Order: sequence, then structure tokens, then C-alpha cells
Amino acid sequence: MRTSSPDGVRALLFDVFGTLVDWRTSIVRDLEGFGERRGIACDWTAFVDAWRAAYVPSMDRVRRGEGPWRNIDALHAASFDELARDFALPDLEASERAWVVKRWHELHPWNEVRAGLERLRARYVVGTLSNGNVALLVDIARFADLRFDVIFSAELFGHYKPDPEVYLGAVALLGLEPQEVMLVAAHGGDLRAAARLGLRTAFVLRPAEYGPAQTKDSGPEDGVDIAVRGLDEVADRLGA
Amino acid sequence: MRTSSPDGVRALLFDVFGTLVDWRTSIVRDLEGFGERRGIACDWTAFVDAWRAAYVPSMDRVRRGEGPWRNIDALHAASFDELARDFALPDLEASERAWVVKRWHELHPWNEVRAGLERLRARYVVGTLSNGNVALLVDIARFADLRFDVIFSAELFGHYKPDPEVYLGAVALLGLEPQEVMLVAAHGGDLRAAARLGLRTAFVLRPAEYGPAQTKDSGPEDGVDIAVRGLDEVADRLGA
Repeated sequence: MRTSSPDGVRALLFDVFGTLVDWRTSIVRDLEGFGERRGIACDWTAFVDAWRAAYVPSMDRVRRGEGPWRNIDALHAASFDELARDFALPDLEASERAWVVKRWHELHPWNEVRAGLERLRARYVVGTLSNGNVALLVDIARFADLRFDVIFSAELFGHYKPDPEVYLGAVALLGLEPQEVMLVAAHGGDLRAAARLGLRTAFVLRPAEYGPAQTKDSGPEDGVDIAVRGLDEVADRLGA
Repeated sequence: MRTSSPDGVRALLFDVFGTLVDWRTSIVRDLEGFGERRGIACDWTAFVDAWRAAYVPSMDRVRRGEGPWRNIDALHAASFDELARDFALPDLEASERAWVVKRWHELHPWNEVRAGLERLRARYVVGTLSNGNVALLVDIARFADLRFDVIFSAELFGHYKPDPEVYLGAVALLGLEPQEVMLVAAHGGDLRAAARLGLRTAFVLRPAEYGPAQTKDSGPEDGVDIAVRGLDEVADRLGA
């Protein structure tokens, strides 16, 4: 979609939810299966969309310092409980609830991700840079068979993206300068925060992350270094 | 070497220097080549042994709070400068010094490590738990082609092993209980600290880590869960 090819990049950090894995299709499918087995009628697509919609506000409460640090597993569990009331789900056993909340640990990658990541890893250090907690990211990478050199999580820094501590913390742990690190993400706000701190940025279009009616993140914002439709194109553009 | 097989283990964390990689042979070979190219006569084996001997005291100064946190790259660089004087090396260019200090990033694994790790990773979450800094561990894993699910470094916790914060910090980030995590290491002190905190322990004998005259860490201490001669045997014992 664009043409510049940034020199001097040594590491690529990847947003995970939406950028690498298709959380919506994965979780809707799992919960539809769960509903059938359990005999629970529910619009699971609406449920999952509402669950995801609770994600940013729940992180923002943590970012504003309202209460102690809570990781994404804890936020997903708390928002599930609220939605279970809103959607009038029957009471679940503790083990069922834990299984449902853990659906966020077993997400399928978009088609080209595994191979694209391998191409990029041959030439660059590759890592996650996600608001997901470490245990969740480890599970996703194992489930989806994605090979990273390092797992960076907001949890390591006690801050959620787009707080600067997350981006700069990962850059420092890599022993690199911001301009040597490229954030790869499907979301304008994430890329904007990274660019402001001097990181390079790659926008990956995921036109169906939020479903067929998606309007946000449907194109690159000004200022991204490259804009592409998948990790294979990132590799093409970076000569990997 | 022993017979129990701990149940309930879900993740294996590996000490790196000496346990997975043969730092001594790797660095002596690199520095001998450097000395030849540069025409510097030196007993490089003695130099490397002295460099490694400076490692624990330099960390202990950090552990006692004498000065700010310094990562292993910084400690290796500082101890190199002292030894360069002691061994009367000629002045090096900044780029040469950086190359020499970076030898700790390119260490060869012991023979059975890569395949043993793959077997273990099929069944367990596998990660590092090392005093090496994150960038150093990433480089070693890439150089040695070792696939980890997660890189845990003392640097993430602002404490060096054997401080409890390192072991318990990694366990917490995995979302596990101490008894669900096994530390795999070639060093009694490391394993003792882990066991005291409730982790499971595997001693791996590396009889030549410190060279042919090695006397320490030549056998398991009391209290380790398993004691073996390589990662293949860890996999055998854990049924992986």
C-alpha cells in the first residue's frame, strides 16, 4: 500500500489481538460450541463483541490509577461477569467460567501470520508487544505455533498501551534505540503512540477484525512507515 | 541419576550460562581467534576463567545495593576493563571492545540441548530464568537456535538470582504456583534457592563447564527432584 522501506530496523514488535490473531472468529466459534453443549441460547457474536468492547474501558480504568494493577485475564474475567448478567446467562460452574475466560488464550492466527513471522525472524528480532499478560501471550504463541524471540507484555511494565512506558520499556530491554524498533499493528492509536516516541511503524490492515461491518482501522493513518495487508507484505517490504 | 518423577509440573525454566550453553569453550575460541588476528599474546583460557570468576562478585555488589542496577552486559564490560589491565592487553578500539564483550551473546549450546528442549517444549512451557539481560538472552537463543516460549531475565525483576524475587516473579508471570514450575540448572546454589521457594528442581551435570579441573557442581546436592546428565534425560524422566 505504501513504498518507503525503513533502514536501520533491527527488531519488530507485534501487537497481538487483531494484528496476529483473529480473536472474534476464534471466540465466537468456541462459545457457540459451549452454548450448544450446555443448552444455553445466546447471540454469542454480540456477546463477544460486547466483551471486546469492554476491553479498552477496563484498561483505561487501570491506566487512570483507579485501583491496583490488574492483568488482562483479571479484566476479562470481571467483564465476563458483568456481561453474563446483561445477557442473562445461567450461572456457570467455576470451572466453566475459567474455561470461557481462557478462550482468550486460544486464538487462531490470520492465515499468513505463521509463515510471515518466520521470514521476518530470519532477519530481525521478533517479539510481542501486547496488553495481554505474559501467561496469556505464551499460551497464544504455543496454541497458534508462532515463534517469537521474546514476549513483551504491558504486564512487565505495569502500564498498558498506549502509555509510553510500554514501548520505551521494550526498546530499552532490547538494548536498542527507538528508531531501530518497528511496531507492527492493525490499530491506529497503537501506531500513533509508538511513532510519537520515535519507533518505526507498520500498519497491517485487518478489515474483518471487528466483523463484516468494521469501519475503524480500515486504512493507515498519516505518518506510518509502511502500510500492508499482511505479514508476508511486511517481509516483502523489509527485504526479509 | 535419580528416580522420582515430579507430577504437576507445567513449566520448565532453564538457567542458561553453563546449563544450556558452553560459555568457556565458545569464548576462549573466539578470543584466541581475536588474539591471532590482532597479534595479541595472552593466555585466553586464563583470561576467560578470570572473566567468569568476576561475574558473581560483580552481581553481588548490585545485590547488596552498592550503586544502581547494572545489567550483565554492563558488568561484563566493566570486568573486562579491569582484566585487560591485569593481563596487560594493549588498548582496544571501542568497536573491538564492544565485539569482545558481545562474545557472551554468541555461545554454543551443549550437544543435546536443542533437541532436548524441543522434546520438552512439546509438553511443557519452556523459558529461560537467567541473570543474563534480555537482549543477551535473545541473542543467545537466536545464535544457538534454541526455541523458548518466554524469556525471563533477572533484569525484569531488578534482582539477580539467587534473590527470591527472580524465581517468584517468573512463577507469578506464568500464572502458576511454585510447585508447578521446575528450575533446570547445573548449579547447586541456584537450585537450592528455587527449592526453598517451593519450585521443583532438576540438576543437570555439566562436568566440564569450568574446564577439565572442575570440582564444584560435580554432583547433585540433596533435595533436588531429579538429577541427570542432559536435557534428553530430563525429557526421559518427565515423559516428554
